[in-house]
Amino acid sequence: MNRRKFFRNGSLATLGATLLSPFDVFANTSDTEIVNKNKKAKNIIVIVSDGMSIGTLNMTDLCLSRKTGVGTNWLQLYKDNKVSRALMDMASASSIVTDSAAASSSWGGGVRINNGALNSGKNGEKHLPIWQKFKSVGKKAGCVTTVPITHATPAGFCVNSKTRNAQEQIAEMYLEQNFDVMMGGGHKYFSSQKRKDKKNMYQAFSQKGYQVVKTRDEMLSSSSNKPILGVFAEDGLPYSIDRENNNALLKNVPTLAEMTKKAIDVMKNHPKGFVLQVEAGKVDWAAHGNDIAGLIYDQVAHDEAIEVAMDFAEKDGETLVIITTDHGNANPGVIYGKKANDNFDSIQKYKHTNEWILKGIGKETSVSQLKERVHYANNFALTDEESKLLLSYYSNLQTEDGLYNPRHLPFKVLAEIQKQHNSVGWISMQHSADYVELAMYGPGSHLLKPFIKNTDLHYLMLEAAEVENKF
Amino acid sequence: MNRRKFFRNGSLATLGATLLSPFDVFANTSDTEIVNKNKKAKNIIVIVSDGMSIGTLNMTDLCLSRKTGVGTNWLQLYKDNKVSRALMDMASASSIVTDSAAASSSWGGGVRINNGALNSGKNGEKHLPIWQKFKSVGKKAGCVTTVPITHATPAGFCVNSKTRNAQEQIAEMYLEQNFDVMMGGGHKYFSSQKRKDKKNMYQAFSQKGYQVVKTRDEMLSSSSNKPILGVFAEDGLPYSIDRENNNALLKNVPTLAEMTKKAIDVMKNHPKGFVLQVEAGKVDWAAHGNDIAGLIYDQVAHDEAIEVAMDFAEKDGETLVIITTDHGNANPGVIYGKKANDNFDSIQKYKHTNEWILKGIGKETSVSQLKERVHYANNFALTDEESKLLLSYYSNLQTEDGLYNPRHLPFKVLAEIQKQHNSVGWISMQHSADYVELAMYGPGSHLLKPFIKNTDLHYLMLEAAEVENKF
Repeated sequence: MNRRKFFRNGSLATLGATLLSPFDVFANTSDTEIVNKNKKAKNIIVIVSDGMSIGTLNMTDLCLSRKTGVGTNWLQLYKDNKVSRALMDMASASSIVTDSAAASSSWGGGVRINNGALNSGKNGEKHLPIWQKFKSVGKKAGCVTTVPITHATPAGFCVNSKTRNAQEQIAEMYLEQNFDVMMGGGHKYFSSQKRKDKKNMYQAFSQKGYQVVKTRDEMLSSSSNKPILGVFAEDGLPYSIDRENNNALLKNVPTLAEMTKKAIDVMKNHPKGFVLQVEAGKVDWAAHGNDIAGLIYDQVAHDEAIEVAMDFAEKDGETLVIITTDHGNANPGVIYGKKANDNFDSIQKYKHTNEWILKGIGKETSVSQLKERVHYANNFALTDEESKLLLSYYSNLQTEDGLYNPRHLPFKVLAEIQKQHNSVGWISMQHSADYVELAMYGPGSHLLKPFIKNTDLHYLMLEAAEVENKF
Repeated sequence: MNRRKFFRNGSLATLGATLLSPFDVFANTSDTEIVNKNKKAKNIIVIVSDGMSIGTLNMTDLCLSRKTGVGTNWLQLYKDNKVSRALMDMASASSIVTDSAAASSSWGGGVRINNGALNSGKNGEKHLPIWQKFKSVGKKAGCVTTVPITHATPAGFCVNSKTRNAQEQIAEMYLEQNFDVMMGGGHKYFSSQKRKDKKNMYQAFSQKGYQVVKTRDEMLSSSSNKPILGVFAEDGLPYSIDRENNNALLKNVPTLAEMTKKAIDVMKNHPKGFVLQVEAGKVDWAAHGNDIAGLIYDQVAHDEAIEVAMDFAEKDGETLVIITTDHGNANPGVIYGKKANDNFDSIQKYKHTNEWILKGIGKETSVSQLKERVHYANNFALTDEESKLLLSYYSNLQTEDGLYNPRHLPFKVLAEIQKQHNSVGWISMQHSADYVELAMYGPGSHLLKPFIKNTDLHYLMLEAAEVENKF
């Protein structure tokens, strides 16, 4: 406990006396910061947790602290006083509550646009995406994510499109732009069998000199001297906790940290530097599903990617690391109550997501089978009434909507049931208007003010890298 | 829009070249901060919004910005780069989700204790409250609040008690300790007719030389040369928006900003300085009631108290201003949707709180009377079904619990109905475990690290004021 006893030396307590020794005056200004102000950012790594309400970061930190004694890497950077911090207003042109496309475009194009578009104004104006700007001055550029690599957050740094939904076309635009590392999910936007136009995008990437990898092993053993396209799932990658408890997924699907490491290895020796976006995209999907195990453990995956990026950046000394989220989602939090601690700690024993639970149920599932499945995944006992309520959604008696819930499964009902056991509440299954947390490490981080608009980040990245905005 | 074009001068881009000119090196370190590091805090003003989730600050800022073009004073301090910021972990000894008594005691006594107690450990250990420490070194000390002045947050800086509920005894302890300004609600803990022991605490304060004021006019016209006890309501003060739309309340009840101004005036000329706690206590009560108009406009009242404190501190130059909250509550936020902007903006037309709506209904209220009341207060039309649901709570057909809801009125039901019209959601009617926002201005603010424990704040205040912790 900090119980410093002190009496300051009166003779030091004047400004004049300290002018000769600026490092003493600014004892709380880290040495890193002093060095950073005189360096340009050769490399930039932007690590986004998609749809992370502050409660998501908070619960992940609490969960890790209580489970392992050590909290998140993100908040450890605060404890170690290594980063600049800000709140960021993520509103889009069309709404105080942004979607991921407008959010990424605000950073990517430097202009607020309507929800749903990618660097495309309401009259079709195109705003040049920032990864294209950096490519054009000679840097390497890439993206890795746990959702389809053609999804809104990577796409917002890379391409122009009137709609985020044009994911097949976005795959083609990536190829045209020659990005150096693109990895995530989204097989259906690359495969000739899945695409409407039957184009084989894998072949097209191969022909242009890319290594195309589809499993963790292929990725790990790929060369670091050639560009890479990595696609590891039909749509989004599996949730971290489901992967963790499934040997086939463990073998076939890389973690976000592993993809981050590979991306850095591929681009780090480039003389003109590189830019990389890392997205924990399924934090958002978990929030849309009020799926606590999905949420916390994918936030942990994001946090492990922070560690990889920081390990590189601290040794490298010329890398700006930006850690943030694009909007809140569902504003979850631990709710007061006599059993709050024990309830919240019970999440540490969860083996699977709510998605895993609900997708493994069907019309033919019995009450006892359902109870067994929930007990296996969450370590608590459903009541008969709760079981029947959940099962009623499988016989089309009831239905639930949701952005990532095409089968209309009872995610909300399950989260309400879980709340009694884990003390976690949610305001909705949608994005929120919360200002978001933003942290920066390395050269350029001193440019950050304590409150910024999303679009400011575009210009800050250019300024940090000393790239004149003449495009 | 910030589109700075630049190419830095290479000759300045080395550390050595700038050592002679420290103010240039630290261009982003404000001049204020440089001065602050060499000053002690003669005065400390702690401004607490009780139970403020980050969404509460965010929505208040959004609401003000969209209504007036200017956001909160709190976030303006960030935009102007005037403050240090941190996240603060508010856990108590008994729970990851604190109550206000343990929260205030962590700051007040420097030790985490169980929820419900005031600077009293589980074996009865007493931790000397910080306002007593400052009194003992000769400073003046006071508290102003919108809840009873004997409530947990002021009491945690001032007294020891095994339970926060001993509010009658707490009133007596305040008198013993000779605090200089104590203002808020809580007539029932001072009045001989209301107290169990029939003591007339007003008389006792008067006999000890206090001015006792019970209306806004009495407060405004009171002398600034004598200590003051101000009690303006039976229990908590009215919500700001209800006061704003009621002439009698406008006349009789001061705002938090007015109480803050008076408290500063009474204590500011003291040679050894002063310490003042300012609490917007009903932000918490509004969150417990999922009462959006109560929440936002009482947060505005808190924000206006910030302005008063900052006006003083900026001129004074020897005052540390600490702005924070003691815990999240209900984690509200604006929910995504096509009508999110219009819905959220509709709150600007609200004339009254949900408390005002619900307390004005009775068994005899008709559906049309209820509809008229809600339309008057919130500018939307209840359906017949919604009206009947609300009225069912008045004929004892249904009931709702809640910390500040002794009459079991349907606060939750009303908030659910409003959500369709204002797009605001809540996770619960209880505190949350969120780490909280903390900002500091003035001498001592450089001591703040980006992530702290609640108890650290106790020692920071002593260190900022250069008061050795020998008590």
